[in-house]
Amino acid sequence: MGGFTTNATIKSFGGRFLKLSHRAFQTRSTQNFTLFIPPGASVEKPAPLLIYLSDLTCSPDDVTEKGFLHAHAAPLGLALLYLDTSPRGLNLPGEHDAGDFGSGASFYINSTQQPWLMHYKMEAYITRELPALLAEYFKELDMSRPGRYKSVSAWAPIANPSLCPLAQKAFEGYLGEDREVWKKHDATELVKSWKGESLSCLIDVGTDDNFYKQGQLLPENFETAVKEADLEGLELRYQDGYDHSYFFISTFGADHVKHAAKALGLF
Amino acid sequence: MGGFTTNATIKSFGGRFLKLSHRAFQTRSTQNFTLFIPPGASVEKPAPLLIYLSDLTCSPDDVTEKGFLHAHAAPLGLALLYLDTSPRGLNLPGEHDAGDFGSGASFYINSTQQPWLMHYKMEAYITRELPALLAEYFKELDMSRPGRYKSVSAWAPIANPSLCPLAQKAFEGYLGEDREVWKKHDATELVKSWKGESLSCLIDVGTDDNFYKQGQLLPENFETAVKEADLEGLELRYQDGYDHSYFFISTFGADHVKHAAKALGLF
Repeated sequence: MGGFTTNATIKSFGGRFLKLSHRAFQTRSTQNFTLFIPPGASVEKPAPLLIYLSDLTCSPDDVTEKGFLHAHAAPLGLALLYLDTSPRGLNLPGEHDAGDFGSGASFYINSTQQPWLMHYKMEAYITRELPALLAEYFKELDMSRPGRYKSVSAWAPIANPSLCPLAQKAFEGYLGEDREVWKKHDATELVKSWKGESLSCLIDVGTDDNFYKQGQLLPENFETAVKEADLEGLELRYQDGYDHSYFFISTFGADHVKHAAKALGLF
Repeated sequence: MGGFTTNATIKSFGGRFLKLSHRAFQTRSTQNFTLFIPPGASVEKPAPLLIYLSDLTCSPDDVTEKGFLHAHAAPLGLALLYLDTSPRGLNLPGEHDAGDFGSGASFYINSTQQPWLMHYKMEAYITRELPALLAEYFKELDMSRPGRYKSVSAWAPIANPSLCPLAQKAFEGYLGEDREVWKKHDATELVKSWKGESLSCLIDVGTDDNFYKQGQLLPENFETAVKEADLEGLELRYQDGYDHSYFFISTFGADHVKHAAKALGLF
């Protein structure tokens, strides 16, 4: 179907869960993703879509197996798209040497640096190429709503990557040393000049998350920037005693799915 | 604690999820298990326990990550014990050669055959040794209720192992060739002479389960035996289009947890 290879079709919570792959134009590589189509979705009644960006080192299988988001999306009539963290099937120099750079760690940006720029065009792939293909070949998905995204939520995000060591390494590798360029991929920097509607943003951070405790996430900086920009619509929650695992993801999965479903007008 | 090694403590759905291992007396080997203690459980208010026997080839990590049973057990105040499928850390001849025999496939019985009988005493381990240890060292678990088990449920069980090729291989290896001995470990045979109370038994089978379609599960035989014994309390459900994966487990997880919780008097 449309160049997609269907690697598995599994019934889950009354809906269809598909494991798919295809040869992507933007990344000149194999891209894997998974898709949950809720029960009742059809050409006549297409389902809106929540797009999930997988965490560093993960594949789409991780969250689909451990996140348990289907359970909450099915009764709401919400479709779920789980993206992979990088192109696959390449062997660029050093690509597989570290968990925080190269394969499994694209940071979802368009690289401008050698040797990455020929393949690591994940921003173009996930914001334009793949949505257009899905709209063309999965008519039971509603890709027509005005505005590209209605809401955003995150578990333990790197909220200010320009200032966290883990992301600095990746940004330098993918984007070069000019830190002004980095700001275009940094939520805390971007929100300072946000001119759109009020935010619809939910963030959960576990207080026992080692990345948080090491200063790799910096949600406080994002919160401060939102306040200084006089924006509304951020809900930042610190979840006592939770770590960075999929048990944290699944515990609060219902809240994140409902957050998206509400913004998409499903209730 | 009590010879237990705590390999991880993770907060999940407000409760405590523990990865534990210990040196077991019955199996003369390392035994791994995981334990979910729901929020609110205490010495004063101990939680009753649902014991989950992992599927062939699996470790306790599989169901804890992919089954999503914590979500349903937490609000009901039910504790969950996830058992491993065999002793670990041994190297008996041929032990690791196949997925359906040896490591990962003890069938939870006491072997009487060489070379298994020195270690593969899983029935004694899971029905006596481990419950006694848990009662001693986890006072927030209620192990005191009369009768050993109050209910049973299963996803896609081998319901009549004496007649299915997959289990026949294992029974011959662990128990020898005498088929009368096999009957003591075959639910369909056992129910024929059941003299206890009415059953409290829930079984789900997916109609697209390859093991079911190949005649490895035989739930029909179990149902017939229950009817012929004039017993009540079996609910056997065929779930249309579901396979043998953890997506099947998680889809119906809420029903199985509630089935146990109800039998334990939690609602």
